[in-house]
Amino acid sequence: MPSIIVHGGAGAYEPGKEHERGLLAAVDAAWVLLESGGSAADAVEAAIVMMEDDPIFNAGLGSSLNLEGVVECDASIMLSDYSAGAVAALKAAKNPIRAARLVMERTDHVLLAGEGADSFARKMGLPSGDLRTERRIELHRKNLRTFRDGGEIKFMPNLRGLADEMGIGTVGAAAMDAEGRLAAGTSTGGMMMKVPGRVGDGAVIGAGTYASPHAAASATGHGEAIMRHLVAKGAVGAAGDIGVREAVESALEIGRFHGFGFGMVGVEENGATALGFATQAMSWAERTDDGRRTFLE
Amino acid sequence: MPSIIVHGGAGAYEPGKEHERGLLAAVDAAWVLLESGGSAADAVEAAIVMMEDDPIFNAGLGSSLNLEGVVECDASIMLSDYSAGAVAALKAAKNPIRAARLVMERTDHVLLAGEGADSFARKMGLPSGDLRTERRIELHRKNLRTFRDGGEIKFMPNLRGLADEMGIGTVGAAAMDAEGRLAAGTSTGGMMMKVPGRVGDGAVIGAGTYASPHAAASATGHGEAIMRHLVAKGAVGAAGDIGVREAVESALEIGRFHGFGFGMVGVEENGATALGFATQAMSWAERTDDGRRTFLE
Repeated sequence: MPSIIVHGGAGAYEPGKEHERGLLAAVDAAWVLLESGGSAADAVEAAIVMMEDDPIFNAGLGSSLNLEGVVECDASIMLSDYSAGAVAALKAAKNPIRAARLVMERTDHVLLAGEGADSFARKMGLPSGDLRTERRIELHRKNLRTFRDGGEIKFMPNLRGLADEMGIGTVGAAAMDAEGRLAAGTSTGGMMMKVPGRVGDGAVIGAGTYASPHAAASATGHGEAIMRHLVAKGAVGAAGDIGVREAVESALEIGRFHGFGFGMVGVEENGATALGFATQAMSWAERTDDGRRTFLE
Repeated sequence: MPSIIVHGGAGAYEPGKEHERGLLAAVDAAWVLLESGGSAADAVEAAIVMMEDDPIFNAGLGSSLNLEGVVECDASIMLSDYSAGAVAALKAAKNPIRAARLVMERTDHVLLAGEGADSFARKMGLPSGDLRTERRIELHRKNLRTFRDGGEIKFMPNLRGLADEMGIGTVGAAAMDAEGRLAAGTSTGGMMMKVPGRVGDGAVIGAGTYASPHAAASATGHGEAIMRHLVAKGAVGAAGDIGVREAVESALEIGRFHGFGFGMVGVEENGATALGFATQAMSWAERTDDGRRTFLE
């Protein structure tokens, strides 16, 4: 009884029909694999690739732009056997989640960042391209105007004004396959106007993505706070004792206590899915033996 | 009653007089600050700067070289108020721990990597230079010969043959100041022959470094395993309930269960220090009101 649950980001936005379409395409792509005996890792990768290729999400094509107008993507994947791979500040690979999976499978490392990550992706033969969209370029121009200070762009704008935007459009997935293996993954262009080289929770095992033999989860929201509190590790660690649904709720409580918002999807060893968010909105979809559902809240 | 504890790496080596000298210089530099009312963050930074500047350690000057013979440093710092900063794959800044602290204090981010991190360090006015030493260049030549495969260097050598070398010479510190504030930090050149862009546990909050109002800790050892299991977060999280000494022991048990070795130093809210390792050797030193001690095991 496999299951797949995906999210399209948490924050202050109004998920619409395009998000729903993208999320359903992602769970459908994963489900085809899961039904034919594909692994949880295959399912998570396929779901996230679909969303990376869809410019409505802030991942792969359509990623947000950093302070210098450049795309720098973060992505990570982890399996229930504790294997893990991630990339950070990847500039050109079209599908960062594929690069993350190759780090896991083809190197002795967990995380590659910056030019080294791009070089690795090229050597692995992954397609690259310009991931900027017209919408993102226009948004960047607007941000530059907002942050212009006395005729000059500040070296590092105070990003707290953008807090509500932070997790918007990040994508993630958690899946269980027919053999009971679990996987989770996350992919994101990160926050708009970030300092070049900024690595967010989406690239950090334990922060945005975590998995154990008991559960797997992907989180998104205020990235820096998620990194300081390792929310995905926290939820997955608790899931073995209290189940993934209570574990997600308990993680959200920690966020509320420390004053930051995020959303999370997860799956546990019996295939049950879980989701929760403490932000204005979140979008997600799932497919299990009970059928296919989307949620736009 | 302030206290400071530092380590000079865990692994398979024989700590000698030079390590002892370097570790004592580090705790002395920190102690001067702590005695005159300096913060735990100041003490951790000062101790680590001393060790980064000492070529006997694998941090700052004398860092190990990656597959291409280039230095790429990781460093991180975290305080008991959950503020945190880190840099990864930093190529030229002489004191990566200072760059990590500036990320914490001067940006809205937790982690900067690659060229973005170097650019940030330059803009902050941090001195840079060539961090390679003759000893490291010679070791790299030897490694290239070892990994040469049919006349060609493999794109990614299997690094498991280097496992014992992994945590050697990484440095870290944990301190409590007179006001009871805690801090921990870690700095490293990472593993020899790593793939360019590889980010290790020393740059990851929760893996190599963590702090909470109850405890602060720095870990070193098999970096990728430390990242997958977030050992510093685990120990610091447990310290509130069982004390930092038992928490370090308990973290080492997790390492033994999953089959990887590491060492750790920590401090807790009452100023008690803790240390432990599950590798062949580890070197450390501490200074508390009870006096100054070194350990080379």
